[in-house]
Amino acid sequence: MNQNYRKIKIAYIGAGSAAWALTIVRDLIVSKTLSNTELVFVDIDPEKLEDTTRLAKRYNQITKGNLDIKATSKMEVAIKDADFVINSVLAGAGHVLQEKIRNISEANGYYRGIESREFNMVSDYSTLYSAYDQYHYIIDLVQKMRDIAPDAWLVNVSNPMLEVHTIILRENKIKAISYCDGTLHSRMVAEFFGVDPKKTQIQLAGVNHNIWLARFSQDGQDLTFKISEWVKEKSQEYWKNDPFYNTYDETIYYHDISKHQQFSKAAIDMYKYYGLYPVGDTVRSGSWKYHYDLETKKKWYGPYGGLDSEIGWSRYLEHIKNKNELMKNLSTENDERILETIPPKMGEDPVIPFIEAILFDKKVRSHFDIRNEYAGEKIIPMLPSNVAVEVPALIDKNGIHPEQVQLNDRVIKECLIPRVVNMEIALEAYNQGSYDVLLEAIYRDVRTRSNHQAEQVLNSVLSIPENKGGKNHYR
Amino acid sequence: MNQNYRKIKIAYIGAGSAAWALTIVRDLIVSKTLSNTELVFVDIDPEKLEDTTRLAKRYNQITKGNLDIKATSKMEVAIKDADFVINSVLAGAGHVLQEKIRNISEANGYYRGIESREFNMVSDYSTLYSAYDQYHYIIDLVQKMRDIAPDAWLVNVSNPMLEVHTIILRENKIKAISYCDGTLHSRMVAEFFGVDPKKTQIQLAGVNHNIWLARFSQDGQDLTFKISEWVKEKSQEYWKNDPFYNTYDETIYYHDISKHQQFSKAAIDMYKYYGLYPVGDTVRSGSWKYHYDLETKKKWYGPYGGLDSEIGWSRYLEHIKNKNELMKNLSTENDERILETIPPKMGEDPVIPFIEAILFDKKVRSHFDIRNEYAGEKIIPMLPSNVAVEVPALIDKNGIHPEQVQLNDRVIKECLIPRVVNMEIALEAYNQGSYDVLLEAIYRDVRTRSNHQAEQVLNSVLSIPENKGGKNHYR
Repeated sequence: MNQNYRKIKIAYIGAGSAAWALTIVRDLIVSKTLSNTELVFVDIDPEKLEDTTRLAKRYNQITKGNLDIKATSKMEVAIKDADFVINSVLAGAGHVLQEKIRNISEANGYYRGIESREFNMVSDYSTLYSAYDQYHYIIDLVQKMRDIAPDAWLVNVSNPMLEVHTIILRENKIKAISYCDGTLHSRMVAEFFGVDPKKTQIQLAGVNHNIWLARFSQDGQDLTFKISEWVKEKSQEYWKNDPFYNTYDETIYYHDISKHQQFSKAAIDMYKYYGLYPVGDTVRSGSWKYHYDLETKKKWYGPYGGLDSEIGWSRYLEHIKNKNELMKNLSTENDERILETIPPKMGEDPVIPFIEAILFDKKVRSHFDIRNEYAGEKIIPMLPSNVAVEVPALIDKNGIHPEQVQLNDRVIKECLIPRVVNMEIALEAYNQGSYDVLLEAIYRDVRTRSNHQAEQVLNSVLSIPENKGGKNHYR
Repeated sequence: MNQNYRKIKIAYIGAGSAAWALTIVRDLIVSKTLSNTELVFVDIDPEKLEDTTRLAKRYNQITKGNLDIKATSKMEVAIKDADFVINSVLAGAGHVLQEKIRNISEANGYYRGIESREFNMVSDYSTLYSAYDQYHYIIDLVQKMRDIAPDAWLVNVSNPMLEVHTIILRENKIKAISYCDGTLHSRMVAEFFGVDPKKTQIQLAGVNHNIWLARFSQDGQDLTFKISEWVKEKSQEYWKNDPFYNTYDETIYYHDISKHQQFSKAAIDMYKYYGLYPVGDTVRSGSWKYHYDLETKKKWYGPYGGLDSEIGWSRYLEHIKNKNELMKNLSTENDERILETIPPKMGEDPVIPFIEAILFDKKVRSHFDIRNEYAGEKIIPMLPSNVAVEVPALIDKNGIHPEQVQLNDRVIKECLIPRVVNMEIALEAYNQGSYDVLLEAIYRDVRTRSNHQAEQVLNSVLSIPENKGGKNHYR
């Protein structure tokens, strides 16, 4: 296939979130090879869709791009004969629902919400109680692609990624890959420990939000000793003297909390216990011991208690709000301001490079979510075949070529398998429409004190108007 | 091999517990084919060893048996050149230690002790905090057998069986099988639901203490409908009218509690949720929802709160005490009384039949613990290869022939895998001598409220004099 012969069509679903959509526009334009692509935005919110489309067209114009940008509220129109479908949708009431669930949960004795379970952050990505709409949507999307764009690749960037990508691969109908930008944290990790990430061989492996530095080397030499040295010689001083850890700034930006978590006492405790360095969102998980209450979180993550504390999460919500306002206002700004906000150079996310690799046989290496048994071999032998793992892979015109990775028993048995078991429970509840499975999951929550409490919180959560679909489904 | 040419030698380790040892003596005598076996008792307690040996010899005499009964405190002497080694040892301070651990745990907010975790009964079989001596002993036993009786079969009947048999098979040095009499409950289940167990095909499958009625049929007809019918039409009446459930008798015998658990509300709740009937000790597990406190236990298991409540367990300890006294006094009784207590007919446990099957090619079918991957095929595909599963098997001179069994996703994903994960954590703590792994296991306990509580209970438990070996080992 060659771009000179045929225009490439990409559907982008979930364009209402302008920030991510604009990075795709930018990357397409600067890629050159894809700069005359037909890009079709989809969103169910007509106002947001119009905003994003207007801004994207403006950006295309300013940068003298050649993209053919369209918009539709009908997913089928966008998907039909597409070469690639990018999915960034969090279906249903999304964050609104999750905030409501958290409030109800905390009122019932579940600090930070009943989704806050081990090994998938202690945050708002619900795998169970608010994900009905998301799972329903994903299955529908896969079916539609099979029907009207059977040769297209699905590039999914939406959460909860382990569950979503596992659903996709078990449907077994289309070509698909998922991508989480949490994997980019590895560069920061390398720099922090005094190594040039460009010269370093880095392999992350695990499942989404639960990934570990499986390889960290330079010219064949293992560099893990640099982490151990830092822990031994510099960590105490760092936590004592770094301003992040010893001052409290009301206006701290969420990015700083996210960044500093990566080198917090929790991260180092996990590194010591598991024997591999936890990367990105992984640090937000661990077992419940880091998360009993705000005081415990502060002890392990510093004065803000990490991204998932009351403090950290409020900063994240503030960030989302600001970003949305920024994007909303951007189309009324002048050209310079727009270019300043979204500089026209390739970003770090490998979504467009992935597409180029498939189409034009460029070799692209990055971390993706793919099926654990791939081309007849298991990537992580102790996990089931039909589960989405997050691993390094080389992409070319022939598809995905996962690298061999080496994790250890402790990470697999004490983190990945328990996380996969939780995923299975979420999917079983969904597949069977079972209220009982949801309830059983709450019975197993470390914070449940009685059957009554578990029933009460589940019934309250299912009664939120935004959870209507779930309430009908889980019987 | 033929019994006419060579005397068979069986070592029986742990003969201090006379009751089990005497059933072996009885079964050997009544088997005829093995009645002139050399049987060597071993125990580290000289007094108990002497008591058992005296009683065994007396029984041999009364029944005109031809056994050559010996006793030694040296395990090596018994094992050397043995054909079979039967192990019934709970090494270390055993029940004494476990009762002490329970008291300390309850004082620290862990109702029923910190071993009381999901999916391995809520009882005193410790897999973590008191099992050091047991694991150490088992590895030593396997090594000794490899050295001085490499062709012998190990028949293990000791707990915690999942952990112990998994250790044995991972050592990969000798032929071995484990057996738990909990599997015999299936006969009672069949009778209760109005079926003749002798005419019924029954398959149990799972891991030790976590076994499920995978097949229940007669002449090819599935009989599960009999259970569902009973649940629907008779269960409410039964729980209302059966004297066990509506009266409270101070002197109730522990066997009655054990038996009635099998048809308790907890058992039926598990049956409804998991879709397969839980058999034997399985009913004592489930998730923590049946076990928060005595009141909850009573709701699910009846007025005594099941075998693992304060009430039920006190009856069990009483039973053990009575049994030991009975056995102690038995050798001073007259012949009639001895024969009355231990009637000379083959018992239900398939230990001696197993030996006959191996030696004389008798076909014996029963439930045993064996390696999950057997002769190149996995018996329960979703579980790891090198884990002990409890399944039906046919035994003959060529060894073990496991039957094909069919469990469902819910049992495997929500019960067996979490139980196997706990087993892995116990073995990892042991293999690495890691205090941190023990602590992490307590952090994950549903009853842990703070890191301090977890550390406090673990340190207190490791400080018991009877836990000396463990304290030195887990650093």
